Amino acid sequence: MPNEIKSLNEECGIFGVWGHPDANQLTYFGLHSLQHRGQEGAGIVTNDRGRLKGYRDRGLLADVFRNPENLAQLTGLDAIGHVRYATAGSHGLENIQPFLFDFADGQFALAHNGNLTNAVSLRRELEAAGSILKSSSDSEILMHLIRRAPGPDLHQQIKRALQQIHGGFAYLLLTQDSMIAMLDPNGFRPLSIGQMQNGAYVVASETCALNAVEATFIRDVQPGEIVTIDDEGLHSDFFTTDTTLSICSMEYIYFARPDSDICGVNVHTARKRMGQRLAQEAPVEADMVIGVPNSSLSAASGYAEASQLPYEMGLVKNQYVGRTFIQPTQALREQGVNRKLAAVKSVVAGKRVILVDDSIVRGTTSKHIVKRLKAAGALEVHLRIASPPLKYPCFYGIDIQTREELIAAHQSVAEMCETIGADSLAFLSQQGLIDAIGLNKDAPYTGLCMAYFNGDYPTPLYDYAANYQASLNADKE
Amino acid sequence: MPNEIKSLNEECGIFGVWGHPDANQLTYFGLHSLQHRGQEGAGIVTNDRGRLKGYRDRGLLADVFRNPENLAQLTGLDAIGHVRYATAGSHGLENIQPFLFDFADGQFALAHNGNLTNAVSLRRELEAAGSILKSSSDSEILMHLIRRAPGPDLHQQIKRALQQIHGGFAYLLLTQDSMIAMLDPNGFRPLSIGQMQNGAYVVASETCALNAVEATFIRDVQPGEIVTIDDEGLHSDFFTTDTTLSICSMEYIYFARPDSDICGVNVHTARKRMGQRLAQEAPVEADMVIGVPNSSLSAASGYAEASQLPYEMGLVKNQYVGRTFIQPTQALREQGVNRKLAAVKSVVAGKRVILVDDSIVRGTTSKHIVKRLKAAGALEVHLRIASPPLKYPCFYGIDIQTREELIAAHQSVAEMCETIGADSLAFLSQQGLIDAIGLNKDAPYTGLCMAYFNGDYPTPLYDYAANYQASLNADKE
Amino acid sequence: MPNEIKSLNEECGIFGVWGHPDANQLTYFGLHSLQHRGQEGAGIVTNDRGRLKGYRDRGLLADVFRNPENLAQLTGLDAIGHVRYATAGSHGLENIQPFLFDFADGQFALAHNGNLTNAVSLRRELEAAGSILKSSSDSEILMHLIRRAPGPDLHQQIKRALQQIHGGFAYLLLTQDSMIAMLDPNGFRPLSIGQMQNGAYVVASETCALNAVEATFIRDVQPGEIVTIDDEGLHSDFFTTDTTLSICSMEYIYFARPDSDICGVNVHTARKRMGQRLAQEAPVEADMVIGVPNSSLSAASGYAEASQLPYEMGLVKNQYVGRTFIQPTQALREQGVNRKLAAVKSVVAGKRVILVDDSIVRGTTSKHIVKRLKAAGALEVHLRIASPPLKYPCFYGIDIQTREELIAAHQSVAEMCETIGADSLAFLSQQGLIDAIGLNKDAPYTGLCMAYFNGDYPTPLYDYAANYQASLNADKE
Amino acid sequence: MPNEIKSLNEECGIFGVWGHPDANQLTYFGLHSLQHRGQEGAGIVTNDRGRLKGYRDRGLLADVFRNPENLAQLTGLDAIGHVRYATAGSHGLENIQPFLFDFADGQFALAHNGNLTNAVSLRRELEAAGSILKSSSDSEILMHLIRRAPGPDLHQQIKRALQQIHGGFAYLLLTQDSMIAMLDPNGFRPLSIGQMQNGAYVVASETCALNAVEATFIRDVQPGEIVTIDDEGLHSDFFTTDTTLSICSMEYIYFARPDSDICGVNVHTARKRMGQRLAQEAPVEADMVIGVPNSSLSAASGYAEASQLPYEMGLVKNQYVGRTFIQPTQALREQGVNRKLAAVKSVVAGKRVILVDDSIVRGTTSKHIVKRLKAAGALEVHLRIASPPLKYPCFYGIDIQTREELIAAHQSVAEMCETIGADSLAFLSQQGLIDAIGLNKDAPYTGLCMAYFNGDYPTPLYDYAANYQASLNADKE
Repeated sequence: MPNEIKSLNEECGIFGVWGHPDANQLTYFGLHSLQHRGQEGAGIVTNDRGRLKGYRDRGLLADVFRNPENLAQLTGLDAIGHVRYATAGSHGLENIQPFLFDFADGQFALAHNGNLTNAVSLRRELEAAGSILKSSSDSEILMHLIRRAPGPDLHQQIKRALQQIHGGFAYLLLTQDSMIAMLDPNGFRPLSIGQMQNGAYVVASETCALNAVEATFIRDVQPGEIVTIDDEGLHSDFFTTDTTLSICSMEYIYFARPDSDICGVNVHTARKRMGQRLAQEAPVEADMVIGVPNSSLSAASGYAEASQLPYEMGLVKNQYVGRTFIQPTQALREQGVNRKLAAVKSVVAGKRVILVDDSIVRGTTSKHIVKRLKAAGALEVHLRIASPPLKYPCFYGIDIQTREELIAAHQSVAEMCETIGADSLAFLSQQGLIDAIGLNKDAPYTGLCMAYFNGDYPTPLYDYAANYQASLNADKE
Repeated sequence: MPNEIKSLNEECGIFGVWGHPDANQLTYFGLHSLQHRGQEGAGIVTNDRGRLKGYRDRGLLADVFRNPENLAQLTGLDAIGHVRYATAGSHGLENIQPFLFDFADGQFALAHNGNLTNAVSLRRELEAAGSILKSSSDSEILMHLIRRAPGPDLHQQIKRALQQIHGGFAYLLLTQDSMIAMLDPNGFRPLSIGQMQNGAYVVASETCALNAVEATFIRDVQPGEIVTIDDEGLHSDFFTTDTTLSICSMEYIYFARPDSDICGVNVHTARKRMGQRLAQEAPVEADMVIGVPNSSLSAASGYAEASQLPYEMGLVKNQYVGRTFIQPTQALREQGVNRKLAAVKSVVAGKRVILVDDSIVRGTTSKHIVKRLKAAGALEVHLRIASPPLKYPCFYGIDIQTREELIAAHQSVAEMCETIGADSLAFLSQQGLIDAIGLNKDAPYTGLCMAYFNGDYPTPLYDYAANYQASLNADKE
Repeated sequence: MPNEIKSLNEECGIFGVWGHPDANQLTYFGLHSLQHRGQEGAGIVTNDRGRLKGYRDRGLLADVFRNPENLAQLTGLDAIGHVRYATAGSHGLENIQPFLFDFADGQFALAHNGNLTNAVSLRRELEAAGSILKSSSDSEILMHLIRRAPGPDLHQQIKRALQQIHGGFAYLLLTQDSMIAMLDPNGFRPLSIGQMQNGAYVVASETCALNAVEATFIRDVQPGEIVTIDDEGLHSDFFTTDTTLSICSMEYIYFARPDSDICGVNVHTARKRMGQRLAQEAPVEADMVIGVPNSSLSAASGYAEASQLPYEMGLVKNQYVGRTFIQPTQALREQGVNRKLAAVKSVVAGKRVILVDDSIVRGTTSKHIVKRLKAAGALEVHLRIASPPLKYPCFYGIDIQTREELIAAHQSVAEMCETIGADSLAFLSQQGLIDAIGLNKDAPYTGLCMAYFNGDYPTPLYDYAANYQASLNADKE
Repeated sequence: MPNEIKSLNEECGIFGVWGHPDANQLTYFGLHSLQHRGQEGAGIVTNDRGRLKGYRDRGLLADVFRNPENLAQLTGLDAIGHVRYATAGSHGLENIQPFLFDFADGQFALAHNGNLTNAVSLRRELEAAGSILKSSSDSEILMHLIRRAPGPDLHQQIKRALQQIHGGFAYLLLTQDSMIAMLDPNGFRPLSIGQMQNGAYVVASETCALNAVEATFIRDVQPGEIVTIDDEGLHSDFFTTDTTLSICSMEYIYFARPDSDICGVNVHTARKRMGQRLAQEAPVEADMVIGVPNSSLSAASGYAEASQLPYEMGLVKNQYVGRTFIQPTQALREQGVNRKLAAVKSVVAGKRVILVDDSIVRGTTSKHIVKRLKAAGALEVHLRIASPPLKYPCFYGIDIQTREELIAAHQSVAEMCETIGADSLAFLSQQGLIDAIGLNKDAPYTGLCMAYFNGDYPTPLYDYAANYQASLNADKE
């Protein structure tokens, strides 16, 4: 998986179903297809005629539910689930979702994908008002805000609470009589609605999860929308009219599964177009095109087709890596003994290779791969990156929150090329990316968040603003 | 992995190293890259200055050595290891290799990949002579024959024993002062020799394992050869001169890792040529080419390049399947809920699709995939198989020992096409396969075993002859 | 363990250490000796120079820390830990302690043994004020009260919070610069202080945990006391002067380990005196005395000595029961196949047996044991219970909260004797129990809570009062 | 368990049942009650109408069958099972029993408790004749001898094979149509026959296993007897008439469960008589008697009754030790932090204590316990051992095969007393032991093997003779 060889990490996947006798199993299989969005914890909460019950634990979904009884006990027609990627300092048990809240006046379960930009402020205000937050999760903040919101009913409380939070968020709330999906005003994170043959509604972070349970895609949740699903059907409302679609472009580039569609655009197809465009923007004479498995294979085949060069398997990824615990000794590592990626000597030896990767974070992985290809006999290695240089952190749900770790924030393309040891290096242009995804080709309203590339954050940064500005200033000195 | 979605199974991978201070770790990483050859058991035996010790258990390599102490205790400069695929009826603990034999006059460890055709006869003779065989493995038979062989020394005993066995076999024997590699007179199974920087010799079922430990490829073990490695170096001898290379063509088609070279031919490259040739032999008008992940991707990209059609990701495989224990209910399965392969609707909908697969065994997987592609909106699905029809069983180490399960043994191509539900179906020709692999293009000495396709077994079938003839006769009636 | 064959369950054990380089290991070993107080979850939090970190999970302590890394990472000189028994409906991950609170202005960890009688009211008030409680634990309530308490400093806030809660409670609070032990005004639950050779202070639910880490017993925490331990030493304060010692008599009878001293009285010795007194109060002619392993063995040997009858091993308990997962089929169970307790035929056959047990809850276990002894050939089985009949629920920390399950609440001794199938049945008198424990022999200030036997609760029942009264009334009808 | 705190280890328990629909479960529960006889491996083989199948693995029975499917698959009416203690150098997977042999002419399963004295010779002869032995187990030797024995039928072959082996052995052989129990000519190891309500026969190492499955004791297998059980019933034959009962006295003293009867004598009762006799032989003025849990408690209570002293719980054993993996640091161990046994300060402080233990092997445990009792404040500790000094190794199935490790082989009682640090030390006399067990009070035919105490081995020592003599001579020098 991407996150095994990169330091870019998505922060979760969510899934929910309302009105199906196999709600627990559907949620299990839906989450299973979202496992790439988080591997460090998982959980499911079901609603059995007004009684919510849940199970969650550390580890992959299959580990959490290794004892089938843990899943079977989660009876009921409605369910939400969550797979979690744990950011630094949040490995605790208390952060594994969905959260199940047991109030004197009702039960709620909440699951979240994203990151709030004013979480620290809200947390400070809540604590000052006497509240205790037990997790470091933004889900808990929303629940506090809902509970403290004035309002004639839950729906008004939710609207009020959503108006107080900022950043990127996709929430699924399960109550005793409804399932509620909520998306931030920029729609930073994907969230789609489908329907089962029996009429049951399904909501998921990616459409691959709809396919996994054979649900038919209905539509995406809209920026600023509150979608309430209950036994009467689906109801839509908006907590704000000040919305602008700015879906995270990294979902297309790297995170999402290639079989998912985001805002109507298939991810594999978008990646292939990125590769094709890259071939036009940065051609190079060579014998073959290879991709870094697995996330760059679509872009690599696009590059190959556009440049009419053979698309070859010059790198192979060991499929059993995830289960390996033994680490090579330092001596063996220095000799290049590596468990993950292998260069295929007989494919690349004596050849000029175009190596396509989806992105560069620190540059260390690229450097390692180039080195191995050369050791395998590649005459030349031309590195082509199917996205623009990553220069700015993300505050809406991707685990890059400082510029320090980003090589492109500190080095020119030529410097990076030298650092990495490639024979040439080129990136896709910003317009090339926008065109390849193809939501809306004219800036500034491209439908995409491109902030990692250009620093143009679609929203104020709130709690992050000061630090971010300081890091920019530090760069200048 | 292939064996997760097919019923074709390789029967083991072997690895050995002589003369390296990290022999246990090297064997672990070598076996790790051979994990695709067997996932049901694994073990390692090391030689610590004349004292052999081993550890083996059920499960994947990483499970067997989950407790690092199990590996760390295997000290010594020399080691052999084994990953095992368990054929029906042989799931017992007693079959996990390498076997460690503790005789009053010395210790031996033995690991095996292949299948003997006269095992039943030999077993019967040994039992009649008062011997007991505790496993159902062919490894144990060889050891009995060695022990009972007359001869002035171990080397002569080994030669004598090897002359008594028939079929496909690659053995690694570890003694207190040497490591011995042996290959059958047809070289049915691959076996290669490499060397580490420090001079240590490595022997492995596939060259990908040499790469995994950064060993340099030296040469392949030859048919009929006994390669003895000891502190003096590498010594070669032959137990027979009646040899003809007949390497298993299914290694190229399906089993081996694409980054391995077999008899000097890279597997990915051979597969790509199979796809290219198939495009020439069986072209069809369509919008795109897709492959069945993962083993057919090389052939599919070859077909796409040769036909100048886009190569697309129309099927996606969930990478976390191996860890899943929960099975969907029957009701969900009937609705198509599937954890392994997903068709990508937005890629295939409204399109005429060429689906490339490496082979067809029973046809049930193909039928399922075609059905899912059509459900995802594919207008047409043209199935192209990058190998000839599988009509005859294998007796040299692949787990197909009856014709009953082989759909091509009983149906014409047209019938199969209908059974599977494809819009058209075509197979690669036998000559096409021979040419694509390219060892020696002129029959009968192609260097390949093509018996699965044409029934021309390179050796007598011994214990299998009667049953096999009966099955042919049954077909005729 | 007692709780494997009874339905009486203690609700936790706590342990803390301040100022020792092996704080994590000491807490592990201390908790290990308190494992009988809770087997369903465990956790440890350490303080590493102002940075609190913790690890907790479901299961036995040894399961939670099976990976030694989980314990090793808990560096620091100070630690608190908890073993948990999960009451019905509180199996959730969120209830496993110690809780670790991460506030903007500091970190706290809290562990608790006991039960609050006004928890429901407090929870309702807190929720009404906008707070969210994520667990069902009384620990979390205390933390909320502390945070909301006015007061110049933490110590005053704690005092204020403790004045608001009622019931039985022993708390351990770990802050960044101190460890604080707190006990309810009746001292319902035991809590003792010890000291290591290096001067480090230790606090534990039972003195057996002081022995386990070779700490010297200093004194018990007093009812109503707040003991603050920091780098300056030990400081005492009281949050109330309205205190009366009413230590839970069931700790002596059943819960505590026999090697613990509670309020200066050794548990084994007290149990032996209960058996001796019972022999005086309810003698019977018989051939031998046997005890129900393990909690009744002390009382049985006391009965035997006082009656000058042989003390025999007529029942044996399988020591490996805890690890067994396979349950006998219904058919086998009906034939008496039982994994836990075995009657020893050759000891009891043809004999008149006095069977000593510590208490009777539902009577089903007693019935089963008597049946097995008779099946083993015992001529007579005279059941002697080394405590008075259990007639009333406990609201201070033992998991009996209704009268329904208590056989003695509904049947006379003669009726119980018939239900159980014994030849005679007798209980220790209340005065007998008081005298045997020997804290203070004159009622009403015996130092003991005897409410389970006589309904005289030492405190108002608050939230439980109405239900309890209803259950009494129901009895009368 | 005994073996957790001693270095004396039994080498296995066996159990079989013929003719019960729950044969697999009965064997599981039977073995469960024999778990004290071996904790390092376990297995079960069943016979399902002529088809034998088995499952075995490392670990406790409950670990081996943690996945209930492993047990459920073992269908059939007949079964044998084994729990194994692994002696040094025999930890391999290949030694876990029962062994399942798959011959061309039939299947056999074999389980064994004991040790052959001519195993090395037999092994050498078998290897010389061309056989291979894969395990280091004596079970495999018997199977080789049976297979090589001439004779008209299996029964004659078995008789012939049994006549060739020497030492202590209890075997259970499962064939496709019978279950066969065999005992050595001295009956060194216990083996009993019972019957279920439905008529099914049960054979087990100890009668506690008969009780565990509610079987009625029928009789013991006799020295030199072959008991064949099949659908016709039970048949008896003898492979030799040269028999003398010499049951291992250590079974009474230490190994067997107290609820078992051996040769008609209850183990608890025998131990109690040992304690009583010891009180007569070696009285001492003191305040109380305590026993080392758990194996010495019966003897301790016997000593207490005979000396009219209180029997107290001065040592407590942690019941959760078996699951603990974390070991205390060296620093903590030196401070006495111990997870297994705790001295109870308030019981022993200021008291003169008589400490009863069943035996002394190396003396290190005794030394440790005495030290802890003194540290807990005991004024005097008088150690009383309820068996004679262990001076000679056992060659019939107990894991003491050299004199080196036996303190009593090298020190006088006075020296041992000083080494251990006790105030006095006394052992039970040999005649005292014989009388307490009470099989036959007049030497030399006491029915007991007393060789550990007096060196009088009931049989020649064969392969061990030379080494043993050398060790005696070494002593003299």
